[in-house]
Amino acid sequence: MNEQNNGRSSRLPGFYKLGLEERIEKLSDFIELTREEQYHLRHEALSPALADQMVENVVGVFGLPFGVAVNFQIQERDYLIPMAIEESSVVAAASHVAKLVREHGRITVSSTDPIMIGQIQIVGAPDPQAARARILQARERILEIANEQDPVLKEVGGGARDIEVRVLQTVRGPMVIAHLLVDVRNAMGANAVNTMAEALSLFLEGLTGGKVLLRIVSNLADRRLARARLEVSPSAFDEHGWNGEEVVEGILNAYAFALADPYRAATHNKGVMNGIDALMIATGNDWRAIEAGAHAYAARSGRYEPLTKWSRAEDGPSASAQGRPEHGRMGGKLIGEIEVPMAVGLIGGATKVHPVAKVALKILGVTSAQELGEVAAAVGLVQNLAAMRSLVTEGIQKGHMSLHARNVAVSAGAAGEAVGQVASQMVREGRIGFDRAKQILRHALRAAEREVQKLETRLGEEPPKDAPKPKPAPETGSEPKPPAESS
Amino acid sequence: MNEQNNGRSSRLPGFYKLGLEERIEKLSDFIELTREEQYHLRHEALSPALADQMVENVVGVFGLPFGVAVNFQIQERDYLIPMAIEESSVVAAASHVAKLVREHGRITVSSTDPIMIGQIQIVGAPDPQAARARILQARERILEIANEQDPVLKEVGGGARDIEVRVLQTVRGPMVIAHLLVDVRNAMGANAVNTMAEALSLFLEGLTGGKVLLRIVSNLADRRLARARLEVSPSAFDEHGWNGEEVVEGILNAYAFALADPYRAATHNKGVMNGIDALMIATGNDWRAIEAGAHAYAARSGRYEPLTKWSRAEDGPSASAQGRPEHGRMGGKLIGEIEVPMAVGLIGGATKVHPVAKVALKILGVTSAQELGEVAAAVGLVQNLAAMRSLVTEGIQKGHMSLHARNVAVSAGAAGEAVGQVASQMVREGRIGFDRAKQILRHALRAAEREVQKLETRLGEEPPKDAPKPKPAPETGSEPKPPAESS
Repeated sequence: MNEQNNGRSSRLPGFYKLGLEERIEKLSDFIELTREEQYHLRHEALSPALADQMVENVVGVFGLPFGVAVNFQIQERDYLIPMAIEESSVVAAASHVAKLVREHGRITVSSTDPIMIGQIQIVGAPDPQAARARILQARERILEIANEQDPVLKEVGGGARDIEVRVLQTVRGPMVIAHLLVDVRNAMGANAVNTMAEALSLFLEGLTGGKVLLRIVSNLADRRLARARLEVSPSAFDEHGWNGEEVVEGILNAYAFALADPYRAATHNKGVMNGIDALMIATGNDWRAIEAGAHAYAARSGRYEPLTKWSRAEDGPSASAQGRPEHGRMGGKLIGEIEVPMAVGLIGGATKVHPVAKVALKILGVTSAQELGEVAAAVGLVQNLAAMRSLVTEGIQKGHMSLHARNVAVSAGAAGEAVGQVASQMVREGRIGFDRAKQILRHALRAAEREVQKLETRLGEEPPKDAPKPKPAPETGSEPKPPAESS
Repeated sequence: MNEQNNGRSSRLPGFYKLGLEERIEKLSDFIELTREEQYHLRHEALSPALADQMVENVVGVFGLPFGVAVNFQIQERDYLIPMAIEESSVVAAASHVAKLVREHGRITVSSTDPIMIGQIQIVGAPDPQAARARILQARERILEIANEQDPVLKEVGGGARDIEVRVLQTVRGPMVIAHLLVDVRNAMGANAVNTMAEALSLFLEGLTGGKVLLRIVSNLADRRLARARLEVSPSAFDEHGWNGEEVVEGILNAYAFALADPYRAATHNKGVMNGIDALMIATGNDWRAIEAGAHAYAARSGRYEPLTKWSRAEDGPSASAQGRPEHGRMGGKLIGEIEVPMAVGLIGGATKVHPVAKVALKILGVTSAQELGEVAAAVGLVQNLAAMRSLVTEGIQKGHMSLHARNVAVSAGAAGEAVGQVASQMVREGRIGFDRAKQILRHALRAAEREVQKLETRLGEEPPKDAPKPKPAPETGSEPKPPAESS
């Protein structure tokens, strides 16, 4: 638990309306930023001299807008979420939906121990299966050697925990792949794990008769998962005249789409990562590692799938609109869940070096890498909900506009197919009104009359009485005419 | 083609040795940076006031180190690669391997047209298959409506190109999913595509009798692929005493590992994205979109796989070491290939707004989004090679050290199993020497003698003459003793 935020709220109403300077003052007040910390927010995102120590061939610094998402309440704790990102709406959308959820629902989180995987690749072992058995037999000694490399990690409760071995069939023959599982505590863990894997090389060569080639952490950190779950009442989405139930049904349809289609799942997950990456960069973490872990995890079933799951609570007050119980019940809360590899650190990397990353961690107020991972999962989940809500309500808005346009078209005299066609044209033009509907109808009627005349001329006679009369239709060029809307 | 870099080299030897200020001066000279552009490199990565216009709740700016990778030559053109990244070694590794490739090989690139996919989700169509047929029949009108939305795009040679439709089975029933394919030219394309997809909603509802819900670009931009291919002679890796052939064989083994194992593939691809993301951020592009597209594309086969392919050229001077022709030939060039979705823009987003992104594009000197995508693919490929080279040569270095330690152990009197055990201990301790080998052997001998005495005491008699004598062994605790190294 964090002392600074304890008893304080992340609500900060009207924060977005403040000027930049007022926001910095309010924040500085709220989390007691020092003058130096404020200096970095106001004037120096990172000094070129420090940048020059971090990477090679430095010629300057690239600045990303650094914002704060408000309103987050996760497991009864309030968090301000620091975000570094260039894309508009991400911070605002997260803040808004976090507000809906804190007022109409809640977010809970959990995570596994911070276990990273160090991969050791052994090629050319004469008997790969025997090699596997020997490595597993030597488990205790292997953990001992690994833990000798990092006594500090051991002292703080971390250390090598287990060894797992697979014989992998590859295009260059069988390889023995050992996974060293290491509890890395508050580190991202790549360095600790790589050092241990390296130290084990000769022992494993001796054990197996093979050659160790790669010894490196895996970014598919599926033993280090963070989870978040949110539930929110449909009434949370009763905004701007929308019906919350309709919004929730739309969200479930949007999710079903993502679940069935990698083209949609990629974009769905991109929305999740908008939130997670922004927090990762702000806290000095390696976002490529997090991205690789998340997306590879999304593909673990053999299909590329959404990182989140959405459903209705079973205990809703009434049966589902479709009468299909598997879709939960109308009125039931919307449930969102995420589970995602989260190789994040509070130490190492840029986290302890970068002045604004340090400010970000102070703003966030987490005390362990696990807590950071859990908050990141929650931010990703909320961001995903925010994106779906936005897409769905735009769809609903359009639907309402369409309904309105149809009513106007009918009142102007349209009937049959012409209703949908007049309505479509008005919405497309952004001019929905009685007069415009009349104009379109009149225009269509004239076009139809000309069509009839042409037909008459060509046939050289009056049309037979039972010939179908061309229906009035708006100008749609020479393309096939759409059938009437049937819904 | 770019005038600024024409006839100039990206070689810049010793650039890394210069001080920050000298580097800025050299670069300013090289690509004629204005005083204002230099100001942003030296002093203002992004003004908080501009950041405040880009995203919400801004309280400052987060700075990423901004470096330049040198030595890149892609399809006979020299490029300086701007990179924004917090991780050390990425810029240096890219620069070094780009140098090896320019001197001992070459890079070629290609790409598809810049076609983005706009997804339109239609739910509740009474007859989904008929809806699909009707949409396909209305192709011309659909493209017309779409193209009315963006006459400027049409003028510059872009525009809606085609419509594709699938009926998707989902957990909430069948949905009709239309894909509008749009050539977005130099834009990332999300805005253009979203606008077109939105404009089509009512027409498609009329056509299908369903409701349009989501209308949004897909980040799995697999119609907008960038490709790079590099070939490099094994002798390029004859550095620091390594044997280039051995390095290439190691790289092919590392690749085979990644091809067979998602745990490795995720890390392999993370290395690719180190290069691509750094360039994306530097040029103001949306890296989450690129990440989602790349990783979802990596999973398209139903398995999560490497984004790159590595092989040997068939025309090597001699047969493969393993005598397996499918592995190419020893001496044959190393061939690397990448194909990756590349939804990048030179206009829109932060690209034209961000002062350092503008400098980055000037440094890079590309004239189209396609060219930027091709360069990004090449950077990802080179970064991948750099990572594998580093991992493999560390492995080889360790192997050489092991060989050295074994020789020392033998010279100190070790024989049989003890050779590997003494060598392992010395390498683990980082103390490889004759005296230490002697000490370990002496220590092992004493331990063995004590073991013999204990046995004698327990048996109460002299051991029978044919009983095996415990072999001298170093202290390995109570764990099973490793067998001798058999290689």
